Amino acid sequence: MDKIRMGIIGIGNMGSAHAISLLRGDVPEIELVAVADTRQSRREWAKEALSPDIQIFEDGDKLIESKCCDAVLVATPHYDHPRFVIKALNSGMHVISEKPAGVYTGQVREMNEVAEKSDKVFAVMFNQRTNHVYRKMKEIVESGEYGRIKRVNWIVTDWYRTQAYYNSGGWRATWDGEGGGVLLNQCPHNLDLLQWICGMPVKVCAFCHNGKWHDIEVEDDVTAYLEFENGATGVFVTTTGDAPGTNRFEITLEKGKLVCENEQLSLYGLDVSEREYCFSATEGFAKPSGHMVELETDGENPQHVGVLKAFAARILRGESLVADGKEGIKGLELSNAMHLSSWLGRPVELPVDEALFLEKLNEKRNNSVKKQNVSEVTFNTEGSY
Amino acid sequence: MDKIRMGIIGIGNMGSAHAISLLRGDVPEIELVAVADTRQSRREWAKEALSPDIQIFEDGDKLIESKCCDAVLVATPHYDHPRFVIKALNSGMHVISEKPAGVYTGQVREMNEVAEKSDKVFAVMFNQRTNHVYRKMKEIVESGEYGRIKRVNWIVTDWYRTQAYYNSGGWRATWDGEGGGVLLNQCPHNLDLLQWICGMPVKVCAFCHNGKWHDIEVEDDVTAYLEFENGATGVFVTTTGDAPGTNRFEITLEKGKLVCENEQLSLYGLDVSEREYCFSATEGFAKPSGHMVELETDGENPQHVGVLKAFAARILRGESLVADGKEGIKGLELSNAMHLSSWLGRPVELPVDEALFLEKLNEKRNNSVKKQNVSEVTFNTEGSY
Repeated sequence: MDKIRMGIIGIGNMGSAHAISLLRGDVPEIELVAVADTRQSRREWAKEALSPDIQIFEDGDKLIESKCCDAVLVATPHYDHPRFVIKALNSGMHVISEKPAGVYTGQVREMNEVAEKSDKVFAVMFNQRTNHVYRKMKEIVESGEYGRIKRVNWIVTDWYRTQAYYNSGGWRATWDGEGGGVLLNQCPHNLDLLQWICGMPVKVCAFCHNGKWHDIEVEDDVTAYLEFENGATGVFVTTTGDAPGTNRFEITLEKGKLVCENEQLSLYGLDVSEREYCFSATEGFAKPSGHMVELETDGENPQHVGVLKAFAARILRGESLVADGKEGIKGLELSNAMHLSSWLGRPVELPVDEALFLEKLNEKRNNSVKKQNVSEVTFNTEGSY
Repeated sequence: MDKIRMGIIGIGNMGSAHAISLLRGDVPEIELVAVADTRQSRREWAKEALSPDIQIFEDGDKLIESKCCDAVLVATPHYDHPRFVIKALNSGMHVISEKPAGVYTGQVREMNEVAEKSDKVFAVMFNQRTNHVYRKMKEIVESGEYGRIKRVNWIVTDWYRTQAYYNSGGWRATWDGEGGGVLLNQCPHNLDLLQWICGMPVKVCAFCHNGKWHDIEVEDDVTAYLEFENGATGVFVTTTGDAPGTNRFEITLEKGKLVCENEQLSLYGLDVSEREYCFSATEGFAKPSGHMVELETDGENPQHVGVLKAFAARILRGESLVADGKEGIKGLELSNAMHLSSWLGRPVELPVDEALFLEKLNEKRNNSVKKQNVSEVTFNTEGSY
């Protein structure tokens, strides 16, 4: 095999963007051969917009059963990710799932078990991991050169969405259709990056506000407090209701501080570790000396194309993935912990109580209200995901 | 009276800085005539460093009883503020207290009652209110031009202190001597500014860590979540353990965003209110347009001198104070709420339960451990307060 035949299941906002990208030849080792969508309007779009060689299926099951692909990309509403991932793996296909891999960790665990028993590749679309600034932050933290993490503050309130966005699909922003709001739909990237760079917290206390800025039943505003194993603390603040929003990710280390704001990364390095200085200085109001450190990154941010290229390279040559399916569980666990903490009105420890989370989620699903005034629309996501 | 004769009670770090400033003639309408300190080393310092005309007392009681002053400035450890304030007011003197006015709100309430019954001026040293950037932020928020507040994030982790600082006084950073740590000693300014600019929250959930970065029994690391009456939320993060720290105060409004970082203020204004845009836009991923707004401030930041000039002008001509004694209770209530929430391990509503707070504080005081290795030192506070 020198080229992977790929099918895309779900051609809404994200799936159609991937289809167009693949047709354009952005990922030379992947050839788009099929798409599937349960909505007639999207299949009609595919007939017009895509190449006539591409097979169009009425649903993902038929696409998988046709065996026309070596790999599938799952871009359906979240609850269907696990079903299609598992079915495709069991049918001998490689799979890449849009984020979130699942809505609760039990689902992702099951997907990983199936993947492990197969000899197929299972990856997650964590395209923000390809961003040079986040890669650099991880490199600096992991190098240990600046000591251990003391504090993490991520204000990521630039996920602005209008009410029209939420009205664009019946499943969107419902407990039954999506299993959450900003944490499940927009933040999987940030939660994944947070744990990828800083490790997993051991305790979370979150305040989620449902339908605070939009007419929706799920959360569109979250403030979370985090505690890590080494005692470091953090905050994570997000919303789809702020304009202009902020994206400022600050990591204080024992010997410096990293700040990433609007994709600009700065590092202030101390001449000695603050931990040493604190106990050796004789002045009360003095501060350890330091200076800005020039950072060189490779400047690259190949996003989805980078993730898909790596996916192909793994299948064809065993190279490294951007994010293995196993990685999908960690950010999701953080998200589940934030939800559970907010629902219980108290801090929760990690690993999260999966059964309790699922019980509470199912209560929400059972009380989920079917949306009115839905107009199925596919938006241009350019620059927004 | 055309010049106010002032006595300073307590000439440690702050009191001695005030004495030197007054002697230098920084506040033309105030004449330093007396100082008091229970420590012989400080009285010896006063004898050497100050003018021979200045009376030196062994304690604040004697200074007040001497009736040599029209006004006193109280700069003792916090627990003694109320006692001297009340005694001075009752002795017919005007009073300005260093922050915090007291350690718990009941104290401040009592001080205000005494002040109200007298015809004397009672002010609090909230010198950071004189800073042009904070005055501008208040002006913009209060103008209503940018709508209501949606979110407040203040990361103020630039209160770095070494262990030597904490070793410099037996009362410092003890429950019995100071009644708290960074919240009581460093943050009264920030908590006052927060409520001055944004109003008081109605709910607080805080995570205080005691002796996390220093060998002390009180908190030196705090993360607090806030909720305001209109539903706005916020975070307040502070510590004396971070270097380099951050001072970034962000207020998101319905029609714009204010960011003050390192005393630089920026305002991004929207062309329409986000609240209107959200429900009228037809695109899902679109954002309301806007632009940076140039802000003109008067650039002035007269600090303590400004507060003392206003104090004199109030006494002499009835002009406005920077911060009336009544204002001292609000920031303190926020601090008390953060402590109480952390001690109880749950959110607390405001107004705070004063009796419960005092009960818990007294438990801490009773278990307070007398500090070892104390070396009484007075530091140069230049640029640090």
